[in-house]
Amino acid sequence: MSGDIIIKGAGSAPGNAYYFDELEIGQKASFTKEVTDAGIQAFADVSGDSNPVHLDQGFAAEHTPFGGCIAHGMLSASFISTVFGMVLPGPGAIYINQSLKFRAPVKAGDVVTAEVEITDLIEKRGFAQFSTRCLVDGKVVLEGEATLMPPKR
Amino acid sequence: MSGDIIIKGAGSAPGNAYYFDELEIGQKASFTKEVTDAGIQAFADVSGDSNPVHLDQGFAAEHTPFGGCIAHGMLSASFISTVFGMVLPGPGAIYINQSLKFRAPVKAGDVVTAEVEITDLIEKRGFAQFSTRCLVDGKVVLEGEATLMPPKR
Repeated sequence: MSGDIIIKGAGSAPGNAYYFDELEIGQKASFTKEVTDAGIQAFADVSGDSNPVHLDQGFAAEHTPFGGCIAHGMLSASFISTVFGMVLPGPGAIYINQSLKFRAPVKAGDVVTAEVEITDLIEKRGFAQFSTRCLVDGKVVLEGEATLMPPKR
Repeated sequence: MSGDIIIKGAGSAPGNAYYFDELEIGQKASFTKEVTDAGIQAFADVSGDSNPVHLDQGFAAEHTPFGGCIAHGMLSASFISTVFGMVLPGPGAIYINQSLKFRAPVKAGDVVTAEVEITDLIEKRGFAQFSTRCLVDGKVVLEGEATLMPPKR
C-alpha cells in the first residue's frame, strides 16, 4: 500500500506533534510510499522539472547508465520531509536544514521507505538533529542529516 | 508567468545539456516559478506530506510563527533540481548531493527564482560543484551547495 504512515505522531503538541522535551536521542519514525509513473509525472508538473531522464524511456535508456527512466531525487527527498512534517516532530516543526546524498536511482514501481532518527538534541536552540535515509528493498538510495525545530510549548 | 526557464541549456550533449568540458566556474542558470495553492496541494499529494502547516490556514495561523500556510520547503528545493535537470548541466546529469538551508518561509503567491552557479570543477571525478539558492523578491529563502556529474562524451 502506498502512503502508509508506519509510526504515527504521538506527541502532546497540536496535530500529535512532539514538543522538544518529548524527544529523545534514538527516537525513530518512517514513511513508506510507492513511486509510480503517475507520481513522477505529478512531480514533474509541480516542480517544472520535465527532464527527459524522468519522463522519456528512450532518452533515459540511451543517455543514462540506468537503462530507463528514474524518479526525481527530490521526490524521495520529499518523503523525508513527510516524516518530519507528519510524524516526528510532526506538524508545526520548522525545517532548518537538510543534506542529501543520492546513492542510487529510484524507478517507478520501487517502494521507498524514508527513515529518520534523532541523533542529537540541542537544548539551547531547541533544535533536534536527525540522520535521514531512504531505502528500497533494504538498499540505501538517499542519505543525509537534518535539523528541525519542534513546536514550542 | 510561471515555470519560465530563464536561461536555456545550450551545451552540445543530448537535450542541450553541457558536457563537463563545456562548463566553467562562474557559469549560472536559473528557473522561476510561482508557488500557488494548487501547487502546494499537488506537492502534498505526490509527497504524502499533508502537514496542516501547508494546507490548513487556521492551524498554520495558530501554531506557527508565519501567520498562515507555508509551502513545503522541498517544493522550493525541487526548483533547484529543475535548473540542474533542465538547464545546467541539463538532461543526463547525475545528482550526487545537495545541501539545503531553509532561511525563510515561502507562501502561495510568491514567485520563487532558483539560481545555481558553478563554484568548482573536479576534473578527476567529472564533478561540478554549485552554489544554489532560491529567492523571493530578492530575499534568500533557501540556500546550499550541490554536486552534479554532467553527461560524459
